[in-house]
Amino acid sequence: MINLISQVKLCVIKNPILVSKSFQRLCYSTIKLTSDNYPQVKRNTQFKKLTSDDLEYFQSILSPQELIVAKDRDDLNFYNTDWTHKYKGQSNIVIKPKSVEKISLIMNYCNKERIAVVPQGGNTDLVGGSVPIFDELILSLSNLNKIRSFDELTGILKCDAGAILEEVDNYLKDNGHLFPLDLGAKGSCQIGGCVATNAGGQRLIRYGSLHGNVLGLEVVLPDGTIMDSMHSLRKDNTGYDLKQLFIGSEGTIGIITGISILTPTNPKATNVSFLAVNDFKDIETVFKKAKSDLNEIMSAFEFMDMKSMKLTKKHLGEVDGTMSFPLENDYPFYILIETSGSNKDHDDAKLEKFLEDVMGDGTVVDGTMAQDVSEIEHLWKWREMIPESCQSEGAVYKYDVSLPLSQLYSLVELTNAKVKKDGLLYDAETNPEGQVIGAVGYGHIGDGNLHLNVATKEYNKTIEKCLEPYVYEAVSDLKGSISAEHGIGFQKKKYLHYSKSPVEIKLMKDIKNHFDPHGVLNPYKYV
Amino acid sequence: MINLISQVKLCVIKNPILVSKSFQRLCYSTIKLTSDNYPQVKRNTQFKKLTSDDLEYFQSILSPQELIVAKDRDDLNFYNTDWTHKYKGQSNIVIKPKSVEKISLIMNYCNKERIAVVPQGGNTDLVGGSVPIFDELILSLSNLNKIRSFDELTGILKCDAGAILEEVDNYLKDNGHLFPLDLGAKGSCQIGGCVATNAGGQRLIRYGSLHGNVLGLEVVLPDGTIMDSMHSLRKDNTGYDLKQLFIGSEGTIGIITGISILTPTNPKATNVSFLAVNDFKDIETVFKKAKSDLNEIMSAFEFMDMKSMKLTKKHLGEVDGTMSFPLENDYPFYILIETSGSNKDHDDAKLEKFLEDVMGDGTVVDGTMAQDVSEIEHLWKWREMIPESCQSEGAVYKYDVSLPLSQLYSLVELTNAKVKKDGLLYDAETNPEGQVIGAVGYGHIGDGNLHLNVATKEYNKTIEKCLEPYVYEAVSDLKGSISAEHGIGFQKKKYLHYSKSPVEIKLMKDIKNHFDPHGVLNPYKYV
Repeated sequence: MINLISQVKLCVIKNPILVSKSFQRLCYSTIKLTSDNYPQVKRNTQFKKLTSDDLEYFQSILSPQELIVAKDRDDLNFYNTDWTHKYKGQSNIVIKPKSVEKISLIMNYCNKERIAVVPQGGNTDLVGGSVPIFDELILSLSNLNKIRSFDELTGILKCDAGAILEEVDNYLKDNGHLFPLDLGAKGSCQIGGCVATNAGGQRLIRYGSLHGNVLGLEVVLPDGTIMDSMHSLRKDNTGYDLKQLFIGSEGTIGIITGISILTPTNPKATNVSFLAVNDFKDIETVFKKAKSDLNEIMSAFEFMDMKSMKLTKKHLGEVDGTMSFPLENDYPFYILIETSGSNKDHDDAKLEKFLEDVMGDGTVVDGTMAQDVSEIEHLWKWREMIPESCQSEGAVYKYDVSLPLSQLYSLVELTNAKVKKDGLLYDAETNPEGQVIGAVGYGHIGDGNLHLNVATKEYNKTIEKCLEPYVYEAVSDLKGSISAEHGIGFQKKKYLHYSKSPVEIKLMKDIKNHFDPHGVLNPYKYV
Repeated sequence: MINLISQVKLCVIKNPILVSKSFQRLCYSTIKLTSDNYPQVKRNTQFKKLTSDDLEYFQSILSPQELIVAKDRDDLNFYNTDWTHKYKGQSNIVIKPKSVEKISLIMNYCNKERIAVVPQGGNTDLVGGSVPIFDELILSLSNLNKIRSFDELTGILKCDAGAILEEVDNYLKDNGHLFPLDLGAKGSCQIGGCVATNAGGQRLIRYGSLHGNVLGLEVVLPDGTIMDSMHSLRKDNTGYDLKQLFIGSEGTIGIITGISILTPTNPKATNVSFLAVNDFKDIETVFKKAKSDLNEIMSAFEFMDMKSMKLTKKHLGEVDGTMSFPLENDYPFYILIETSGSNKDHDDAKLEKFLEDVMGDGTVVDGTMAQDVSEIEHLWKWREMIPESCQSEGAVYKYDVSLPLSQLYSLVELTNAKVKKDGLLYDAETNPEGQVIGAVGYGHIGDGNLHLNVATKEYNKTIEKCLEPYVYEAVSDLKGSISAEHGIGFQKKKYLHYSKSPVEIKLMKDIKNHFDPHGVLNPYKYV
């Protein structure tokens, strides 16, 4: 066997400064109100419109720093508009309580008065779940953002819901641990929002889901009751595991205010390699071998298709001309593998042998390995900047689905074919009026999770009708889930039946009614 | 640093044949009926006593192999009596349906007729949860025991609830995987029972809890509705994760009939070492170092105290005179560490370095390492036979609790002091009438899970009053949980408030009423 590692190109980073997290956003004013865009969804007349009495009540318990009242229509754009700029609500009040007790009082009042409430974390949600549809009161968790305690021996962290993921992760790293969840929006998203939406991310393959890692929650129920289940025991088998219901409930049955979570030891060694293959089937081969040979040290196995990388190249080139692509040529598919372990020599040896094998037999046709931390960040950047790059063309229709591995990429191909068939695919020569740049695919192979992003020049009804319910039907036909990690929110509520049976949907509705009989929490969404 | 590994004694197994799983049991006839033992618990008069019409209905849908009607009082002893021989019910009928549809029909009927039902798996439960208290109908899952499907690429297994853990694990091993749960009762316990009781076991430290690994369930609800959520996607974020409610619900809100679960790749290398330390604090030191140095390859970290090993020596000596203890001398505490990884050389090197360090600095004072599979089994046997050994003295009061690591062993010391203070501790010279052999401690350090076993000559009310609620109060004072993995069952129902707040208990009762308004499923237990 020839040692191909010596031929692996060093990944050169001319400028390791990270590209700015924000990107050129559309002007807020061009975004349509959700109520105009979806006129079939009506405001629930049971909900009270806020009065001066209500405002007075809020003022009686909240300080000026905890209450924002809009003076102007655009004052609350940040809170009313979602990250994808697809949904825009019309709330005039944002409250940002600094204590759980205040949230309890507010909810007790709102429940009695039938005031609808949208809980909001970092507002990085991708399915329109964290913004109002009409005039719901926005309850932001951002003022509840402290780390409560950390036990270095057990790795158990307790923090407020509003703590920012990246800040918590940095704190943990300073203490020899890491947060068992990582995702692109880490600089803005809040821990509470991550738990409420059951966020997945890149580390799931190694550390498992939040359902396994969250040990306890503090939740304010719709009637203001505080459920203090901030347990810090790895095992506690005393009764129904109620906290699980709130993980992924998207703020529809309670407001998560505190989290107790098990965090793993920070690995002493991390390696990242960026590989190219010619066929999607080769990804499956490489994954199977990685599962066997890298097993306990594998912490990420991501794939990206050629189109997603082309869009990212264009976007990163525009944002920062010095970001060079890790490989010299283009290939149909790319794989990013991360390993993390407790002994660098052992990890290097495992990875070297693995790469020798997959490059030696021709499955992997090109590749590079990061040599230090900045190169690791550079390689990850090419994966993490895809969502922003897809958005940068104007707009993006995002579908985050789970599919059986063998069928994973066929959804991207089907979607491109559908867009082309409907005459919407842009082509400079043959269809310059086409509004769709293209469907790209990337995601977490290890979890069977595909991100299908359809980059477009704008949001419009023609494109939406071309894609929906087509995409959901295709996912259902392929025996997949219409939401792997982004959740349901407003976007997927009416498509739930593609993933859940009538019995399951009825049981979900029953649970919603059980916890929130007046339906005041995050209405018009989820179920 | 001196390499102490060379001095580690080879673990010699004179006879590798495993000790028989069954042990000399008390005669069934000497076991008191639960209703006599706990006269304060009354039969719910709302529940119907079975009539010949009911029997006729059961006969109309069940074959003779699916229905056992007692002809004699002792016919159903196995089904009426729990593993610890502490609880005994009086059911005259056991049904063992061969299909989910039949279970659905039975539950629909029983719910309408108000016939109370106890779902029963392998009946290895330790808190009186799987046997009737009065005349509840026993619904055994043992005839529903097939593996439905297995996907080698993703490691996703689907099986019936009644499949035996050990059989499933062996099947998975033949296919390069393993079940993410292992426990002493594996030869008898059923997968459905494990999930219904949220069993923990030795592998939890490595593979996490069932809440993280179970991907889907099929459940028959109290009214007979079949909730088919046998999803096989690692990620599925479409709605409330209802299946989580049934994990650990102990058959009180639904009968689990099918399980879809993610199973890990079987590691290529396994090492087990058996170490001795002089102080409980040294266990903490060794654990901290193991977490750092063995990190991703550590798959078990168990501890045992001297008394538990002395009882096991006596029991194994009696059962099989050829089982030699792994170490020459006695020590206050023992540690069993298992590692599992994908590369034996790397694992050996990590473990060697680790043992060099902890033996070199004197923290670990003696130890041995298994050299092959039979020696691995032999070392594990000394941990796995403790429950049976404690029971072999006559009876055992079992407490399975979670505690903060630093406080873990103090509960054993407190309990021994209490038993002695109450004059119950046997001593050949000073107290030959004492009925309590002693309190021993062992368990899963990695999970903060202590098994406190009080070995006694018999079950009697004096001992019970000495221990309860004393033990639960002590656990509560130490900020622990009164059930780490065994659950609530009948035994701990009235002590739930030591681990759960009034709000949590109310929410649990609400959930019970929500799913099972007539309370027909597993009554007199849990909440």
